[in-house]
Amino acid sequence: MERHFDQQLGVLRRNLIQMASVVEMAISNAVKSLKERDSDLAHSVVMHDEQVDDLELEIDKQCVDLLALQQPMAVDLRFITSAMKITNNLERMGDLAVNIAERVVPLNQEPQLKPLIDIPMMATIAQTMVKDSIDAFVNKDTTLAQAVCQRDSTVDALNDQIFRELLTYMMEDPGNIIRAVHLMFISRHLERIADHSTNIAEEVVYIVRATVVKHRKHRLSEL
Amino acid sequence: MERHFDQQLGVLRRNLIQMASVVEMAISNAVKSLKERDSDLAHSVVMHDEQVDDLELEIDKQCVDLLALQQPMAVDLRFITSAMKITNNLERMGDLAVNIAERVVPLNQEPQLKPLIDIPMMATIAQTMVKDSIDAFVNKDTTLAQAVCQRDSTVDALNDQIFRELLTYMMEDPGNIIRAVHLMFISRHLERIADHSTNIAEEVVYIVRATVVKHRKHRLSEL
Repeated sequence: MERHFDQQLGVLRRNLIQMASVVEMAISNAVKSLKERDSDLAHSVVMHDEQVDDLELEIDKQCVDLLALQQPMAVDLRFITSAMKITNNLERMGDLAVNIAERVVPLNQEPQLKPLIDIPMMATIAQTMVKDSIDAFVNKDTTLAQAVCQRDSTVDALNDQIFRELLTYMMEDPGNIIRAVHLMFISRHLERIADHSTNIAEEVVYIVRATVVKHRKHRLSEL
Repeated sequence: MERHFDQQLGVLRRNLIQMASVVEMAISNAVKSLKERDSDLAHSVVMHDEQVDDLELEIDKQCVDLLALQQPMAVDLRFITSAMKITNNLERMGDLAVNIAERVVPLNQEPQLKPLIDIPMMATIAQTMVKDSIDAFVNKDTTLAQAVCQRDSTVDALNDQIFRELLTYMMEDPGNIIRAVHLMFISRHLERIADHSTNIAEEVVYIVRATVVKHRKHRLSEL
């Protein structure tokens, strides 16, 4: 019986990794479609979101079944309840990748507002945070999880900087306004993606140490 | 033993209702601080968010304890796993109320851009959705839950309309830009609050009917 339970936990772990890699790809393609002005790629990000939604439903069902049939305790129970929170975060990240892609389409119909530097940099950090938060989860690595949480403030600062810079473009010429607004929202979406990675990293600490660090960011230094 | 379990479920239900009413109040005060240009009220929304965070942690812990100690089945199991998702949605709504309040403060330092009509209307609908989604949850009322889901498209349409109208203000005068951007984000935050209410309403259908309607909005008419 226990061996069967371990196998099922293994399946759950693999499904989460698969879902994370689909979401990582969606974020990566959304940003690529922006950088390379590739509207076909942007459309494909929107089309592929259903896959993320289906994985969320499947994993959620698997978690509820495991709770019902195996009545897990301690670390296994925390793992399963956290898995449900993690899928939720991954699903939102998938939606945010779609939101980015949806803004890339109108952006690509006009000349580029400015060479993009900070947004791709922010995207790179956010993508690394997604990857690392899932790696931390798979390997129960709280040191890596902690590093993810710490990078969140860099992303927040970049979002702020991008917001201010785009405002100057808007002031300069009304013809820049629509494009600048789209870029502002893209920046905000990336910032939210980083937040969701931080949530996942916080779940990792909870699974491993049974310590809740959510809403307790000032305590992370104590980990 | 069972009577004790029922009591515990009652406590969980009351805690969720309490959390929902704190969040409702935060949203209501955030919008009031915008309409009445009351920066003190906006600051108080930001200050009170900790209460929402604490309630989320408390309810989550209670859910995990119930899963561990009572090993619930069927509708009770769905109720508890949904409760964890509902707190997560409520916590995000609390954050969004804070995000609104944070933008009210700089807005109030300048003259009003325009008489606000659509944003308060959108806020009213969003607040009703929050209230109704929680009422639907408390009373296991799938008809009310369905009505919440259906109102989501009205909020989306209003957000779109507000976005377009604010663009015209930005084009007209660069001096309007910063205020219009803040209002755009406030509108987007309200739209997200409505989305979270919809998520809660979808959980209600799941608890009652064991039917997942999430990501399956076209199937709602079949309920």
